[in-house]
Amino acid sequence: MERVPILKIGDILLVSIQLDMSDQTAVALQEDLAERIVATGCHGVIIDITALDIVDSFVGRMLSTIASISRVLDAETVVVGMRPAVAITLVELGLSLNGIRTALNVERGMELIAADRAYDDHDDDFHDGPDPEPTASP
Amino acid sequence: MERVPILKIGDILLVSIQLDMSDQTAVALQEDLAERIVATGCHGVIIDITALDIVDSFVGRMLSTIASISRVLDAETVVVGMRPAVAITLVELGLSLNGIRTALNVERGMELIAADRAYDDHDDDFHDGPDPEPTASP
Repeated sequence: MERVPILKIGDILLVSIQLDMSDQTAVALQEDLAERIVATGCHGVIIDITALDIVDSFVGRMLSTIASISRVLDAETVVVGMRPAVAITLVELGLSLNGIRTALNVERGMELIAADRAYDDHDDDFHDGPDPEPTASP
Repeated sequence: MERVPILKIGDILLVSIQLDMSDQTAVALQEDLAERIVATGCHGVIIDITALDIVDSFVGRMLSTIASISRVLDAETVVVGMRPAVAITLVELGLSLNGIRTALNVERGMELIAADRAYDDHDDDFHDGPDPEPTASP
């Protein structure tokens, strides 16, 4: 069985989907990804679908499942590289990729995740009370 | 025909090879990569072969060709993610991947390229003489 490779770049795990996903490949990817998130402590997962001509309900469901698994492991999932034709077909099929964030390309996906983490950290600081050192900003 | 997606991350183009490469796919990848290097001005190409169980002479030659094309376009190529079994087979087959640099994973590949660029820049500075201001350089 073919496995989709998972690449670690900084705080992010990158998955580039190029194969037609079978049930087995999809399940293996979910398991591998969950294990890698736990092993590395990464806070972001970027799934690149540049190579996909079609995103059907099966792939859509797989992406949703991956996003849900990542979320409970404290990692944000962003799907990047969707082709215009894929976006049109998705809408025509009535698939809305609920709960999945998207970005135009890998770089923007990374920015999105970094911004989210910065916001979360800021939020934590706020609840902890202001820090006396880097001085007083709300 | 299937095309291998090329992802831009900062100053680096990342290619994750997951398919069995046909002649056509290999040629298309070389062309796409050359075009992207020129279009983006990237100085590094990372080719991830984690998903490959076998690197035969055809794939070896393709990697060499990509490295040569990138070199004349002022980009460094690093092959990452080679499996132990692949390394053993390569040596047994007498293929030495001449002229190709390797790294253990994407992150180390990025560090390698960044270190090379820093060295090159330093080298340029040395030959130009130290800069007093951002003004006046040839």
